[in-house]
Order: sequence, then C-alpha cells, then structure tokens
Amino acid sequence: MNKKVDLNCDLGESFGAYHLGMDEEVISFVTSANIACGYHAADPLIMDRTVQTALDAGVALGAHPGYPDLMGFGRRNMQATPAEVQAYVTYQLGALHAFAVSHGGRLSHVKPHGAMYNMAAKDPALARAICTAVYRFDKSLILLGLSGSCMLAEAEAMGLPVAREVFADRAYEPDGSLVARTKPGAMIEDETLAVERVIRMVEEGRVRAADGTDIPICADSVCVHGDGPKALLFTQKIRTALERSGIQVAPLAEIVR
Amino acid sequence: MNKKVDLNCDLGESFGAYHLGMDEEVISFVTSANIACGYHAADPLIMDRTVQTALDAGVALGAHPGYPDLMGFGRRNMQATPAEVQAYVTYQLGALHAFAVSHGGRLSHVKPHGAMYNMAAKDPALARAICTAVYRFDKSLILLGLSGSCMLAEAEAMGLPVAREVFADRAYEPDGSLVARTKPGAMIEDETLAVERVIRMVEEGRVRAADGTDIPICADSVCVHGDGPKALLFTQKIRTALERSGIQVAPLAEIVR
Amino acid sequence: MNKKVDLNCDLGESFGAYHLGMDEEVISFVTSANIACGYHAADPLIMDRTVQTALDAGVALGAHPGYPDLMGFGRRNMQATPAEVQAYVTYQLGALHAFAVSHGGRLSHVKPHGAMYNMAAKDPALARAICTAVYRFDKSLILLGLSGSCMLAEAEAMGLPVAREVFADRAYEPDGSLVARTKPGAMIEDETLAVERVIRMVEEGRVRAADGTDIPICADSVCVHGDGPKALLFTQKIRTALERSGIQVAPLAEIVR
Amino acid sequence: MNKKVDLNCDLGESFGAYHLGMDEEVISFVTSANIACGYHAADPLIMDRTVQTALDAGVALGAHPGYPDLMGFGRRNMQATPAEVQAYVTYQLGALHAFAVSHGGRLSHVKPHGAMYNMAAKDPALARAICTAVYRFDKSLILLGLSGSCMLAEAEAMGLPVAREVFADRAYEPDGSLVARTKPGAMIEDETLAVERVIRMVEEGRVRAADGTDIPICADSVCVHGDGPKALLFTQKIRTALERSGIQVAPLAEIVR
Repeated sequence: MNKKVDLNCDLGESFGAYHLGMDEEVISFVTSANIACGYHAADPLIMDRTVQTALDAGVALGAHPGYPDLMGFGRRNMQATPAEVQAYVTYQLGALHAFAVSHGGRLSHVKPHGAMYNMAAKDPALARAICTAVYRFDKSLILLGLSGSCMLAEAEAMGLPVAREVFADRAYEPDGSLVARTKPGAMIEDETLAVERVIRMVEEGRVRAADGTDIPICADSVCVHGDGPKALLFTQKIRTALERSGIQVAPLAEIVR
Repeated sequence: MNKKVDLNCDLGESFGAYHLGMDEEVISFVTSANIACGYHAADPLIMDRTVQTALDAGVALGAHPGYPDLMGFGRRNMQATPAEVQAYVTYQLGALHAFAVSHGGRLSHVKPHGAMYNMAAKDPALARAICTAVYRFDKSLILLGLSGSCMLAEAEAMGLPVAREVFADRAYEPDGSLVARTKPGAMIEDETLAVERVIRMVEEGRVRAADGTDIPICADSVCVHGDGPKALLFTQKIRTALERSGIQVAPLAEIVR
Repeated sequence: MNKKVDLNCDLGESFGAYHLGMDEEVISFVTSANIACGYHAADPLIMDRTVQTALDAGVALGAHPGYPDLMGFGRRNMQATPAEVQAYVTYQLGALHAFAVSHGGRLSHVKPHGAMYNMAAKDPALARAICTAVYRFDKSLILLGLSGSCMLAEAEAMGLPVAREVFADRAYEPDGSLVARTKPGAMIEDETLAVERVIRMVEEGRVRAADGTDIPICADSVCVHGDGPKALLFTQKIRTALERSGIQVAPLAEIVR
Repeated sequence: MNKKVDLNCDLGESFGAYHLGMDEEVISFVTSANIACGYHAADPLIMDRTVQTALDAGVALGAHPGYPDLMGFGRRNMQATPAEVQAYVTYQLGALHAFAVSHGGRLSHVKPHGAMYNMAAKDPALARAICTAVYRFDKSLILLGLSGSCMLAEAEAMGLPVAREVFADRAYEPDGSLVARTKPGAMIEDETLAVERVIRMVEEGRVRAADGTDIPICADSVCVHGDGPKALLFTQKIRTALERSGIQVAPLAEIVR
C-alpha cells in the first residue's frame, strides 16, 4: 500500500501577450510542476517566470516537452520520426534546464505533453526516443507517464526512474488504458466519485474500470489542473481528501525509488 | 605579441528541408564552431548532427543564439527588452548544452548572432542581458564578441572570460568599430590584403583603419565563413598563412586567460 | 464640422488555445473591425470566426496586418525593409480577404498594427510600402491611420482613400503626434475628460495638446478597445456620449470621401 | 484519347535566407506552377518573386497550400480537423491570390502539398474541407489532385473543375493508388521507361500497375520536379518526348472542361 503520492500540474502555458492558467493559485496545491518548454506553449520569458514561481513555492521542476505545434497547443498527432522526437525532447529539456540552473534550481522530472504523451503511451519506438533523450541528458531525471503505459516500460528497461501517473477525472478501460475522450463515459463528471477513486488508487492500487471490473493500477502521482476556477477547486478538494485519508502529498523524488 | 589565435565559424544553420553552408568541409579548418540554436536558424535535428560533426572534428562547441526571426535569419534589429533577450539567450544556450551533453561533450563559448551581436556591441543594457544569461547558466563559458565592443566590456566587468573577435574581410573605423556595410569600402575585397591584415592583427595587435591611421586591436579569434566554395578557399588561405607565419591556430580555451 | 464618426476596434487577436479580447461584447459598440491576420496574432480558424462575427454584427471588415512576431504581439520595432513590409501586408491582406469572400463579405479598410503602425506613421518609405501593397491589391480599400501621420500623407499622394484615426486615451504633442508612452502624462486617465476630448475632436476638429496649446486634428474614426471589462465600459461610454451629442456613429465608407 | 497534357511543378519553396529549387530553370518546361504559400515553405517575399517569375514565363499560377509545419516541410501527417484544414487552405489561397492580383495576374488552380495532398487523397472529410475552402473562395479554380483519388471525387461532387495528376516516377497499385514509398519498386528508376509510361498514360489512358496488370488512368497533368539538375534534365526529357509524340503541352485551363 502506497502512503505517499505526488500531485502534478501543467504550468507555464502562457505565450507572449496570451495568458493561460491560474499558475499562481494552483502552485500551492501541487508538489510537481510540468513546465512548458516553448514548443506547444510558453516563451522564454514565461519559462523564466514559471521556474521562479515554482522554486518560490518549493515545487519540483519538470520539463513538459511537446510537438512543435503552437497553433494546435501540441494536442494534434504529428507523424514525426523517433529521431525527430528525440531531438525535440533534448532541445526542450535543455532549454528548461537552463532556466532552472539560472535560478539556482534543478530539474526533477520530465513529462511529455499532449499528443506526444498519448502517442508514446502506445508506440514503443516513440517512447524509446523520448526516454533516450532524457537518459542521454541526465539519467537521474524521473520519467512521469501514464501508469501502465509502454512509455514507462521503455523507461524502466532503459534504467530511468519512473513515476506512474493516474487521472482523477478519466475512466479506465479494463486493460488499464484511458477510455478515449470520444467515447461516452470517458470523463468522471461526479467530483465526489472522482476523489474517492483517487484515494482508492493511491491506497489500494485498484480502480473500477469502465466495464465494472476491478483492475490494479499504480499511482505515484495524480494529474491535476489549474486552468480555471473550477479546476482549481477540484484540485484543492483532491489535496484535502488525500490528507484527510492520511496520505502524504510529497514530491516525486520522495516516492520514486 | 599574441602567438596563438582561434578560428571560429558559424555552423549548423540549415533548417528542416533547407540546407545551408558547407559545414563538413569548413570544420577541418576551424577550432571553434558557433552552432545555431533554433531561433535564427537550425532545428533540433540539425543541432544534434552539428554537435556530432563538431565533436568528431575535435572543434570546440559554442552556442550561437539569435533573435526569434527565422524569416529574417536573425539579421534584423528587433526592439526586444533586455529581459526578453536574456531569456532568449538562456533558452538557446540550454538547448544547445543539452545536445552537447547528449553527445558526451560540453560547451566552451557563446557568440551572439547577427543583429543581436551587432546591437549588443553598442548597447550596454543589451550586452549586460546577454552576459547575465551566460553567467547565470555557466560562468566558465567564454563570451566571444567583437574586439573592443561594449559587449566584451560588460562581460569582463561581470567576470566572464572573453575572447576578442576580428574580421578578415571587414574594414575598421578609427575607433575600432566595423565600417558599416552600407558604406563604400566596408569590405576588404583583396584576399591577399585581407590575409596580411589578419596576420598583423594577431602578431602586432594593430590594423590599418579606413582613414589610413594605424589602430590597436586585440585578436583572440578570427571569424571565418563556410557558406560557399569561395568562402571555404579563403578560410583555408587564412589558416595556411597563419601557420606559415608561425602562429598556432588553437581553440579559445588555450588562448583566453 | 464633422457630424459623423467611425468607431474602430482591434478584433480576432486570439490564437490557438489562447483567448484574448471580448470580441463578442465590443462588436455591438463599433462600426469597424480591424481583424488580425495571423502574423502578430490570430490563426486561420480565429480569422474565420471573427469575420463571421463581424458580418453578423454588420460591422465593416478591415485587415490588421502586423510584423511576423507572435511572441512580441507585433509590438516590437523590426528593421524590415520596405520590400519585406510590402510583401507582409500583401500576404495578410489577401489572407483576410479570402475569409471575407468565403463568408460573402468584402474588406472595407486596412489598419496596420502595433509597431508597423507606429513606424509607418513617421517613416515615408515604410508608409509607401504599406500603401503600395494595399493599392496594388485593391485601390478602393480605405487606409486607416494616425491622424496627421506621414502614412496617411503617402496614401493620399498615391490616391488611396484615407481615414484619420484619433485616440481617446492618449495625449497629443503640439505637432499632432502622440505623446510617447514612456513620457509622463501620455495616457488620459480621466475617462470623463477623455470622452470630452473625443467629442471636441469630432465636433470642432481640435484638441488640447500636452503643452496646453490648442491644435487642429481631423477625426474620421476613434480607436476603442475591447480587451477587458474596463475597456468595454469605456467604449460604451464613448459611444453613448457621441450619440447624445448628436454625432452619428457610422462606418468608414460613409465618412471617407 | 487525350492529345493535350499539362506539366505542373512545385515552385517558390525557398524561405528567408534558404534557397531551394531551380525555379528559374524549370519554369521554361512547365505550364503550371504550384506556388508555396508560407505554411510548409515560402515567405511573402519569395511568393512575390515567384508569382512574378511565373507570370513572366507565361505559366499558370496555382496555390500550393500545406500544413503549418515549416520544420517538416509539410510532409508529416498532422491530425488537424477538417475545420482547421479548411481554414488553412482559405488563408493560404487568399495570400497567394493577393500576390497574383498585385502583379496583374490571377490564380488558375489549387494543389494541396505533401501530407495534406496524401491524406486528402484517401480521407473524404479532409478532401471536402479542402474543396469547400476553394469553392467558397472562387469556384472557378481548378482542383489539381491525384488521378482517381477521393479528393477529386469530392471536388467533382461539389462542382469544382478538376485536373487529374499522374506521376512519371511512381509505380501504381492495381487500384490506381500510388505504391507507398516504403515498398520496394515504389519508384520508377529507369527514366526511359518512366517517359514511355507518361506517353502511354496520356495517349491511351492506361498504365501497367506494380502487379503487371494493365489499369485505366486519366492524365490531365504530369507532376515534374525542378529541385536539382537531375530532376531538371528528366523534366526536359519528358517535355521533349511528349512533343515528339504529338501531344500538346498546354495549361490546365485548356484541358479541363
């Protein structure tokens, strides 16, 4: 039974004159920040500020690399080769690392964004490309990815520390994958139920799948959101419920072996 | 009298399907490579290959950050604030650093590109922003800039190691600045004369300015080009002449104190 | 004495996942929309929606071309050549024209954005480049620019219809140019005073300059904003005051000869 | 039996400081130019020059819209929605139209580029999105696409004039689709054979498929290349062979009903 869990949130997704997300508010509820690196979102000035914000809040810094698709916010599948993806991750990882170093900090983890995250969860060659980029840059960095995904299997095979992420607001297939957003019932709309599911995933390592069967699931980190007042309240609710259940909310480095 | 000099060249300026420069050829004549970082030129795949090429050739790796202006190749002045420029340099520096580390190498220097180089040569606030980015990331990195420029003065005041760059094919004003390209006589067209000027700048620390007066100039590194067969031959000519004059061509780290 | 005036507003400045401006709200108060064309802001999907929104509201469509600087929102001076600027304007003008045509509409005017607007107000070569782009594409398009600026002089010399824009919230120098934002007193903070100034500029063709002198100014159009609730209320206030003063708020085509 | 055929070539694919293609040379051999529109390649200055070059050569102007992926040259599949693709095509179409108008010309056709071309050849929703963009902008524009593809079927259903394109250097499957480049034998390496196949496709409307069977194929236009000296010579060879066979090389407008 796992008595500790990390709460991770995507941060620093503004760009130029465009503001996105309630970074200043959500930062106090999470232990890990996945910081956009200028490809799907963010520019260097935003990255600089976000790193400072995360360090001030004592939150662990993670790189959140994505596809070079600002117009699509990195959410659209792109048929990039593994070599291209490896280079994209190296590039973004290094860029964020430089801001961390400039502020006297260091990176703790890497979590691919959007379409890159989803594609690599199922595509071993892509997963390997991402893991290779991380490994060659700094093999002590934790790879944060979908619990049970092929991306984490590749990372483990390579010797990278991994953290298994679960979602409060998403339904699971019996095989442990996420129910596609296009299917009915993909989202867990009932917040109370969602919170209960999170507690159970962390405490018991189990979750009820979409077909009603009970499946095992490993939860090192819960993905939360800060992109609006409603998301913020839900994040707060999850954190409070975890603490009331005696589960310690802690950064990945204290959880991952 | 300086008996050693570095030869530096901009490399890795291709982008996607676009090929630019004779990197494979010029690399054998230089000791330092200024590698584009994805803003004015280059993409991650190009950066990866260029770092590998430079390491294979035993050439020192330098970051060559520029303005976010791929369409203008970073050659157009942009009214970016010092804070923006500092963040742009940090970003690009980190990105290239990651490729260096991935290939088991390390960065030796930083040379701003194009309009950023020219503007920072005269604007102390901009110069300070660039130097701050470098200093906060890694204060052992050598700042390579126009000999006698305000950028180098700022770098020295900050405690960064500096390397003073001279140009073989450019005329100098009596105050040591470059004659603007728009003025007649800005370029030294006669290759033999150009080579002689380089030798004298390195050996005697002096050059004849556009008005005929003789001025002092410090030459730690000579900027050469590999963007065409003619440039390549000229680079070879300079290298040969330097060696025949008993001047050792050596990387910046052996020259800069 | 001018008894009609246009109210123009920049619209469609969102981009991808980023939302900017209260377009749906402000559209009911204005008669002309300056629609971003994908360089300083907007993407094709945003342009499509904005054109539809403007047509539904019966508001005149204008192209709002800017520098290729999404990261700086087109607000940073760029040293682009007149030939480059002419091509940038042609490109963006055509792109917006296509959306207008697709929705059964047509363009009425062109207003350059941000740094391009400001630079062309003082630089005849740049002004001529912009006007040439407009003229060669469609010489019936109205050029909307700073009242008294060199850009409008160039447009008139070329034979383009012009509309002279004034600002409610900006102070004027005795020569009719805007007081630079960096100077104290550049902004008219008092909304009541600002509204009075607008009325007087339209009715009397005069405004009190920053040095207290009274200067002539031609006002075909007033620039208003919809980028926040406060701006929206101020816009509404201006419109109401104009109408109460018996000034008709009408699109440019009814005002420009 | 078809006695006329168009020769089309992609042109204007340079970008900023990057030069690509032998546009000046190949233009004399073709009748239709597919001109890049700034998304997968080209910038406004390049578009301006390419339109001028094509008009000077008396070659028909076509828009060559692609995905917003300069880094991948528009060759990578992107999971963009039909609404996004429709807007991307409208945008690029309008932009090129403006350059045509500025030079006193007009567009004759549209040919999607790279991944957009390939995906739309098989995906009816995507094909419809592209055709809708063209139709709503100017329904007299000819859609140039893969002979036998679903894109042309959608265009015809919508009432757009269509032109059926064949490839000299590609093998065909028995169903008329192109043999995937990843398969052996995808390319017709033997230039003499390739030329013979072109003649037969135009004269007889038939081609030998990869499995040796003889299949019907309609050829209104042959795609040729100008991206290097070898491609240029091959293009010249095709043109000469067509003319020797008594086939008239003519622009699409003379071929499409």
